[in-house]
Amino acid sequence: MSIHGKNFLMVPGPTNVPDRVLRAMHRNSEDHRSPDFPALAKTVLENIKMVFGTTKGRSFIFPASGTGAWEAALTNTLNKGDKVISVRFGQFSHLWIDMMQRLGLDVTILDVEWGEGIPIDILSNYIEQDTRHEYQAVCVVHNETTTGVTTDIAAVRNVLDRYHHPALLMVDGVSSIASIPFKMDEWRVDLAITGSQKGLMLPAGLGMVCASAKALERSKKNNLHRVFFSFEDMIVNNDVGYFPYTPSIPLLYGLKESLAMLMEEGLENVFARHRRLAQGVRRAVDAWGLKPCCKNPKEYSDTVTAVVVPEGFDAQQVIRIAYEKYNLSLGTGLMKVRGRVFRIGHLGDLNELMVLATLAGTEMAMLEVGIPIKLGSGVAAASEYYMKTSKQVRGLFNNI
Amino acid sequence: MSIHGKNFLMVPGPTNVPDRVLRAMHRNSEDHRSPDFPALAKTVLENIKMVFGTTKGRSFIFPASGTGAWEAALTNTLNKGDKVISVRFGQFSHLWIDMMQRLGLDVTILDVEWGEGIPIDILSNYIEQDTRHEYQAVCVVHNETTTGVTTDIAAVRNVLDRYHHPALLMVDGVSSIASIPFKMDEWRVDLAITGSQKGLMLPAGLGMVCASAKALERSKKNNLHRVFFSFEDMIVNNDVGYFPYTPSIPLLYGLKESLAMLMEEGLENVFARHRRLAQGVRRAVDAWGLKPCCKNPKEYSDTVTAVVVPEGFDAQQVIRIAYEKYNLSLGTGLMKVRGRVFRIGHLGDLNELMVLATLAGTEMAMLEVGIPIKLGSGVAAASEYYMKTSKQVRGLFNNI
Amino acid sequence: MSIHGKNFLMVPGPTNVPDRVLRAMHRNSEDHRSPDFPALAKTVLENIKMVFGTTKGRSFIFPASGTGAWEAALTNTLNKGDKVISVRFGQFSHLWIDMMQRLGLDVTILDVEWGEGIPIDILSNYIEQDTRHEYQAVCVVHNETTTGVTTDIAAVRNVLDRYHHPALLMVDGVSSIASIPFKMDEWRVDLAITGSQKGLMLPAGLGMVCASAKALERSKKNNLHRVFFSFEDMIVNNDVGYFPYTPSIPLLYGLKESLAMLMEEGLENVFARHRRLAQGVRRAVDAWGLKPCCKNPKEYSDTVTAVVVPEGFDAQQVIRIAYEKYNLSLGTGLMKVRGRVFRIGHLGDLNELMVLATLAGTEMAMLEVGIPIKLGSGVAAASEYYMKTSKQVRGLFNNI
Amino acid sequence: MSIHGKNFLMVPGPTNVPDRVLRAMHRNSEDHRSPDFPALAKTVLENIKMVFGTTKGRSFIFPASGTGAWEAALTNTLNKGDKVISVRFGQFSHLWIDMMQRLGLDVTILDVEWGEGIPIDILSNYIEQDTRHEYQAVCVVHNETTTGVTTDIAAVRNVLDRYHHPALLMVDGVSSIASIPFKMDEWRVDLAITGSQKGLMLPAGLGMVCASAKALERSKKNNLHRVFFSFEDMIVNNDVGYFPYTPSIPLLYGLKESLAMLMEEGLENVFARHRRLAQGVRRAVDAWGLKPCCKNPKEYSDTVTAVVVPEGFDAQQVIRIAYEKYNLSLGTGLMKVRGRVFRIGHLGDLNELMVLATLAGTEMAMLEVGIPIKLGSGVAAASEYYMKTSKQVRGLFNNI
Repeated sequence: MSIHGKNFLMVPGPTNVPDRVLRAMHRNSEDHRSPDFPALAKTVLENIKMVFGTTKGRSFIFPASGTGAWEAALTNTLNKGDKVISVRFGQFSHLWIDMMQRLGLDVTILDVEWGEGIPIDILSNYIEQDTRHEYQAVCVVHNETTTGVTTDIAAVRNVLDRYHHPALLMVDGVSSIASIPFKMDEWRVDLAITGSQKGLMLPAGLGMVCASAKALERSKKNNLHRVFFSFEDMIVNNDVGYFPYTPSIPLLYGLKESLAMLMEEGLENVFARHRRLAQGVRRAVDAWGLKPCCKNPKEYSDTVTAVVVPEGFDAQQVIRIAYEKYNLSLGTGLMKVRGRVFRIGHLGDLNELMVLATLAGTEMAMLEVGIPIKLGSGVAAASEYYMKTSKQVRGLFNNI
Repeated sequence: MSIHGKNFLMVPGPTNVPDRVLRAMHRNSEDHRSPDFPALAKTVLENIKMVFGTTKGRSFIFPASGTGAWEAALTNTLNKGDKVISVRFGQFSHLWIDMMQRLGLDVTILDVEWGEGIPIDILSNYIEQDTRHEYQAVCVVHNETTTGVTTDIAAVRNVLDRYHHPALLMVDGVSSIASIPFKMDEWRVDLAITGSQKGLMLPAGLGMVCASAKALERSKKNNLHRVFFSFEDMIVNNDVGYFPYTPSIPLLYGLKESLAMLMEEGLENVFARHRRLAQGVRRAVDAWGLKPCCKNPKEYSDTVTAVVVPEGFDAQQVIRIAYEKYNLSLGTGLMKVRGRVFRIGHLGDLNELMVLATLAGTEMAMLEVGIPIKLGSGVAAASEYYMKTSKQVRGLFNNI
Repeated sequence: MSIHGKNFLMVPGPTNVPDRVLRAMHRNSEDHRSPDFPALAKTVLENIKMVFGTTKGRSFIFPASGTGAWEAALTNTLNKGDKVISVRFGQFSHLWIDMMQRLGLDVTILDVEWGEGIPIDILSNYIEQDTRHEYQAVCVVHNETTTGVTTDIAAVRNVLDRYHHPALLMVDGVSSIASIPFKMDEWRVDLAITGSQKGLMLPAGLGMVCASAKALERSKKNNLHRVFFSFEDMIVNNDVGYFPYTPSIPLLYGLKESLAMLMEEGLENVFARHRRLAQGVRRAVDAWGLKPCCKNPKEYSDTVTAVVVPEGFDAQQVIRIAYEKYNLSLGTGLMKVRGRVFRIGHLGDLNELMVLATLAGTEMAMLEVGIPIKLGSGVAAASEYYMKTSKQVRGLFNNI
Repeated sequence: MSIHGKNFLMVPGPTNVPDRVLRAMHRNSEDHRSPDFPALAKTVLENIKMVFGTTKGRSFIFPASGTGAWEAALTNTLNKGDKVISVRFGQFSHLWIDMMQRLGLDVTILDVEWGEGIPIDILSNYIEQDTRHEYQAVCVVHNETTTGVTTDIAAVRNVLDRYHHPALLMVDGVSSIASIPFKMDEWRVDLAITGSQKGLMLPAGLGMVCASAKALERSKKNNLHRVFFSFEDMIVNNDVGYFPYTPSIPLLYGLKESLAMLMEEGLENVFARHRRLAQGVRRAVDAWGLKPCCKNPKEYSDTVTAVVVPEGFDAQQVIRIAYEKYNLSLGTGLMKVRGRVFRIGHLGDLNELMVLATLAGTEMAMLEVGIPIKLGSGVAAASEYYMKTSKQVRGLFNNI
């Protein structure tokens, strides 16, 4: 038997690449040293700032992944042995902390139960007590993709402000930027990090960082090694419209197109769309009688929902059946929550029917595993919400 | 507001073009007189026979539409003033009959109510009474896309056989071929017709005909004009691997790929898949408390279901809302049934979740129009059926 | 050994499809009855008039080839048995005349030696003597692709005007329109015909006709059969933004893009570019000591040059070697001039280096066959011309 | 004026991406944690070894550039302060040395005039005198793209063998691997490095390393920092068919296809083709009365030729005119040889006519700058060579 119909790619990244973007990337290579190249480079370097919510920051685009962008942020601004503080509340915060340690940083780790968000009070205590300002950076994940928990970055900034703490504020926005509000300037984030394969609707292959003036100042004298990820080499070349080494040209054309799409829709509309799709998913989870992994409703992520399966069931089986039988790709449970949750990504180039199809497929897969849910209940709950909040989307933007 | 996510193209044609096929068509032109070209031409001319269910017939591929293929079948085999008999049970049978009349044929039209199938008894009477064999052809539509009614072609053949009638049997298989069983050799169809944009999963642009030896014999002496649609010119050129004029090369590459996909899946599996998807749709219609336009369950089409809206409602509004709000393209009601039905195409490159998304979107649109259905009921009914009949489809055919 | 590098497609059609156009065509199908569709249909129906040089004519786009467009022009405007007059000076004029005869027209054929142009004086005599205005149409090929001879259509119009002859003026502009000046309104052409695969830089698959008001008037009462190619059906549907049957949607998107490209470059610049590239080819032919098939320099075609090989050599061998060894596709000699000429198409999306590569490949192939030319001589002659007439083409239009 | 026709991309990387590869990359994202993914990952990780000439080595594919692969090779195997020895004979060897220094290595630099190759005797002296085996690595660029000079890696290996020196042999094969012979196992290279955008005919975006068992052993205990470029993380994930972070999936599909193309052609044929195309370019340079930058004919690169312009001329002007007027992208002179040379890349998906077009364009550009060459002379010299050495390439591998 062969595969027919579309794969429903509903993992929380890589997300679906719109046809417009795929078309934009389908082109032969070109000379990245030509007089025409800077027009492309400057456009994407400038326009990418919009999704970071910054006009003051400096943008960097590395031909790498979000992991590479983490490394760029750390190695360009910190020194060996520097103290940093971070919160571990899922696999991605765990991996970033692991990177910090392997790069020789001295990390104070605040561990919380997976499903909980950043413990602002505890963090606040650490910052308050650090009167000698030993912490060089506070590193937080904005949206923990493992559990579907979103961090209140403004609250983290407030902690630093309250105690006049000069630590750099580093934020992993990989699964949030371009999908939910991210306000680098307003929150005074010093290093904001993202990848191409989530809200930017591209394949993986670009790691992006925006750095504040303060972060750039630090980068002039810090001592961690970097060459491929060097801000300095990038700046020298970007300033004249080029890159220090051959960039991934198709991805740059794709980025130009995806940024154009986001601008056409309007970022506020993009955020509202993600929130609305997420609300539908959460109503479905509720209708199934299940719970999201995220404990605090104020921290529900609008880009991914990790659904906890009842005791005695294996979430991996739900994922397996959804994939094998219905061509539906759900996100697996990672590390500590493996087998306990499956994840529905609701970010990127999505609409209501893609989500409803996902819910229908998830229902069939759960039932086959034996999880006692009522067929159609989640779809009905989400449909009801979508119907009440629906708007006209077609008929105006034709033939683009 | 811009359009985001996939368009759910669920009209009964053009159908969704698989990514593999889109890729296969993305190529520069080439010399259609080169020594390499015949390998392509001969492959598609040969392989296309499979979907017609013939090994004895001769295949023709015109750079045209199904309408062109109708014209090719008629003009290559009939004479001005010839008597033919046909049944009008929807827009497509109507249009074909209109063509026959405009080409100067003398058409006996059997009109039935739209939603009913071919009246075999009445047709049988006409054939029985035509003892002088004035009817040169019996022209029937296999699957009337307007109403979702499928014709029993074997029964038509039996009528001709019973009375030893030599009329050509011409069958429009535009919305059936490659989707449901079509057995040209077994049914001794003389001229079988299809287009590229339905079960063959291509854009429109190819009109295909398979002709029996008897039909080819007639074409040698009939007198209707044709040049572009000439069998003779095609035969002379096809025999050496070429076409009499520049063919649409990307569509030929696309056809090669779509035929390869059908062969990989296996035609029997393709038919079973269409039947299964159709069954789910029909269960949903039933759960909604609605009726298909097709009156006789034995004639239910496995490629399209025309759903009748209750008295007092306008099906066009359902279609409009589905499109404007949910990016879902449903088929409109045509001519006599305009406003009374909307159509769900369930043919081509489809899977369960695409159908379930469609049902969910249709539910929201119907409810908004005021049609009293229960949200989630159709999705649940279809899901239940799909779940019970599900099979593993992924995990074996990787990375193709 | 496998094929590497680009195929140099230098036949006089199908021509190279620009990457922009290939990208524009790479898209899933869509509902051709949707409210969004007319925006596309109306755009191409309107913009195509530009390349025909008309604001008054009515445009038709058939999902067919140029051959289909020939048939549309004839069957929509003439009656069975009508007298028409035409000139046969190559394969394409021959085939069109053959079509006229098969459609039941009474064709007066003016035969000239292949390589010569339309004998205006002789044509003039016929028209002068036809005082009863029996000729219903004068049918001429604008650019005979077989021999590389271009017709002076204004001169033909003058003949009709001189004798106040009301015959329709039908012009095959398949290998001229969008490449060299074509002035439908100025020349008062009644039916202008083209295909998608030449100057329009698309794959084959669209046959286009522009009709004057006079031609449309005739179409209301003529009696040749047509349904697929019916102007009337097209008009009824096009007027509301649709087509009478499923159109080839990717080709319409491609046409929209190719027309955009032609408008960006400016038609006058497009014509100048073709002329300049052609001049280079002719200088190369002269440097080789060979002759074009076209006898009269005033009739040299700017879209194709048929090069006559010296006595005793077989042009087919030149073509074969160019293809087999150098991945260069040259046009074959057709019918009467088979073996005597090879053809270099210089139309569509071309530049100097593509032509120079072609000349270099042709030189190697000719030498291998034994034709005594000096290696590099043609390339040098063309290069010299291109160098003297060169302009800046890059640096302004970036990243499109 | 707009850009028409193909851009002749003849820089020595990024090279032309074959249409087959572009098609293979045109696909939506997919779950990189799915059960189907390992089939792709394992295929490319295994097949890539072929182009490195290794069966024993372990392959790594980073979503980065060749620069990233340099960094991976160094940081995974060396310790801070380690002594290494390297030769600087162009920009790429310079940049790699610069990276070594910035990573904290103690580099002994052998500087030679740009245009000369590696001074085996001097290197041999250093190795001989290093009896305490302080040099932990010998780092050499196989093909210096700046000057078109190829290194005899076997000779470097012999030096190490002669003195039984245990230093790691690191080789940058970015512009050689997959284009000219590279024999990792035979030469006992410990770390071989390449990028996707040269002989592998892909866009930039993948940095690849093959490591010997000895190199892998070193990586277990060395102390330079790396996380993104960690061999260890890759090994753990690759062993089960995955990557430690989201890979650039389209590039992996592209790599699968380009490796398939190289296997179809046969690597020996690929190498012979590059050599033959290079020979033609060198004959043209000679016919122009110019010299390659590479001084020693034994060291001529078969992937790039840097052509020295006569005293008093500016090579940058040649490049500018070629690009602006003829849509030809030549490689600029880098650093020390800026203005003195222009470079013709002759690697990747190329054929004779692409090279001849390049030579013709270069001739026009040189003449316009005033360089006294004879128009057509280079094309003729190369054509003569290609003609004498030509083979049939088409007619067998059709429709792929």
